Amino acid sequence: VDHDRIGPEGVRVISVSDEGEFGLIRRIVARLPVTPAVLLGPGDDAAVLAAPDGRVVATTDVMVEDRHFRRTWSTGYDVGRKAAAANLADVVAMGARPTAIVVGLATPGDLPAAWVDALADGLRDECALVGAAVVGGDVVGSDTLTVSVTALGDLEGRAPTTRSGARPGDHVVLAGWPGRAAAGLALLEAGHGDHPLTAAHRQPRPDYAAALAMVAQEEITAMIDVSDGLLADLGHIATASGVRIEITAAVLPVDPALVEVGELLGVDPIDWVIGGGDDHCFAATALHVSGNVTAIGRVVALDDDAAPEVVVTDREVPDNRGHEHFR
Amino acid sequence: VDHDRIGPEGVRVISVSDEGEFGLIRRIVARLPVTPAVLLGPGDDAAVLAAPDGRVVATTDVMVEDRHFRRTWSTGYDVGRKAAAANLADVVAMGARPTAIVVGLATPGDLPAAWVDALADGLRDECALVGAAVVGGDVVGSDTLTVSVTALGDLEGRAPTTRSGARPGDHVVLAGWPGRAAAGLALLEAGHGDHPLTAAHRQPRPDYAAALAMVAQEEITAMIDVSDGLLADLGHIATASGVRIEITAAVLPVDPALVEVGELLGVDPIDWVIGGGDDHCFAATALHVSGNVTAIGRVVALDDDAAPEVVVTDREVPDNRGHEHFR
Repeated sequence: VDHDRIGPEGVRVISVSDEGEFGLIRRIVARLPVTPAVLLGPGDDAAVLAAPDGRVVATTDVMVEDRHFRRTWSTGYDVGRKAAAANLADVVAMGARPTAIVVGLATPGDLPAAWVDALADGLRDECALVGAAVVGGDVVGSDTLTVSVTALGDLEGRAPTTRSGARPGDHVVLAGWPGRAAAGLALLEAGHGDHPLTAAHRQPRPDYAAALAMVAQEEITAMIDVSDGLLADLGHIATASGVRIEITAAVLPVDPALVEVGELLGVDPIDWVIGGGDDHCFAATALHVSGNVTAIGRVVALDDDAAPEVVVTDREVPDNRGHEHFR
Repeated sequence: VDHDRIGPEGVRVISVSDEGEFGLIRRIVARLPVTPAVLLGPGDDAAVLAAPDGRVVATTDVMVEDRHFRRTWSTGYDVGRKAAAANLADVVAMGARPTAIVVGLATPGDLPAAWVDALADGLRDECALVGAAVVGGDVVGSDTLTVSVTALGDLEGRAPTTRSGARPGDHVVLAGWPGRAAAGLALLEAGHGDHPLTAAHRQPRPDYAAALAMVAQEEITAMIDVSDGLLADLGHIATASGVRIEITAAVLPVDPALVEVGELLGVDPIDWVIGGGDDHCFAATALHVSGNVTAIGRVVALDDDAAPEVVVTDREVPDNRGHEHFR
């Protein structure tokens, strides 16, 4: 008997390879409710979803064990919540309401099947926050545990909120508390796994409602999901829109817990706020400031021959390019 | 200098980690044309596609190195063609026209960037066969090279061709030549990499046109993409429809090359025909037989208390459950 398959009390743990592909799929599908938008759910060659707008928004994100999560730090449920959130936030950042996700799971055969159950529950529960459903997927073997999610959404008649619409004079607004996930990860890396802020790494909580409320008011000119880091992602808006974005550090929302953790770990908490990804805050440019958001700066015109950039006007900041894979 | 990065002529090969995430994405996107259905292509939080039917078909498949392909046997271009085909065939098997795919690439940092270029070209060219476009993706680091594709499609006003519509009296029809990919893989495994049939493993060629022509005639009652094996996939139709399916081995389409390779390797070619997956043939049940398909059997009513099954009426066949991961 494989040692890995013995649980804490010596009980044999059912693994993915014990279940087999079709057994595993049955376990997963049994945990997933459908929504009115699901015209045909899991079990056929493909799912069929309502797309009442006549356009569909689509995005995909891949999470890899020991790169995006560790099984010692995150449960299957955590990984499901996080993988869904990363994709749903991208859909919402386009001004669309998420309708469904499909999931690709590549897994070692000795992964406990209960971990996959928990993953499915996490995907399902995060989707439920926005009324979306898990409608299909694929399960294959791999030496590296990998979760690929594709999310779809409906624009409900609105124009998409792209990165390219920011104009001089617009306000820069932010929904959410950036830097919490990065501080949580720093705590885990420093061995402080019991600190409450580590939950922000395990299960980021995008403020979907605040973003969708902004979108509904139709005063948003550009929006982005902050996943690389606040300055880096505002840089994507600046570049796509051909503008300069000026941010005031003093008005950035700083979770008081970041100050406490910064003292514990010897880190200036503003570094997490401007450079940390993975919180899936929503940054936008807007004609007016309203709703549950923080005004953090303004869009200004580029000087002749100047390159688009993001500037923090009231303090020195390190040259922060945000998160980039392979670098 | 890393040995892996030196090409055959001693020229340093640009790797994925040399390019970095954003450089790699720029390389990929530069190779991808858009189609009229692409309302917003790569470069934002998500893509926006036309979904004129008001419904969208969605499916996902994951391919893992050394499980679904080997880099010694398949080029990046081959893997791109195959990864796209597996998903596009699922969309077509629902009776829908594919419109777009999104792609998740998890890759070791030392993968040559040119391999990724070729992958993108393969994805693009397979999509072009059905008028679809590559509209987005994600690139992350991983120890295991993994390609996740999600394909979307439009039903053009038709009902989806599910697995559950087969009725007693229907004909069973097949578009394509099953078993060629399995025989090609057997050749590669036996060291016959130079045999032409190995191309069927590297680049399966689903007959999208034949399947879409069947769908347009609206005489299809059920359809499936043959990826697990002909008998196994017809078994999925039998189970979902609650029927018995009777197949005549003598009328199955057998590529003459299978006979030759069967003699070479000591395999009965019919085993590849009924058990081999990965050709992405289309099997369907239909009110009439017409078009570029082969009639291979009939749907019959279940006897009282009998379980749905697939029976080959004119010869003994091994108990063939088709391909299942982890088994």
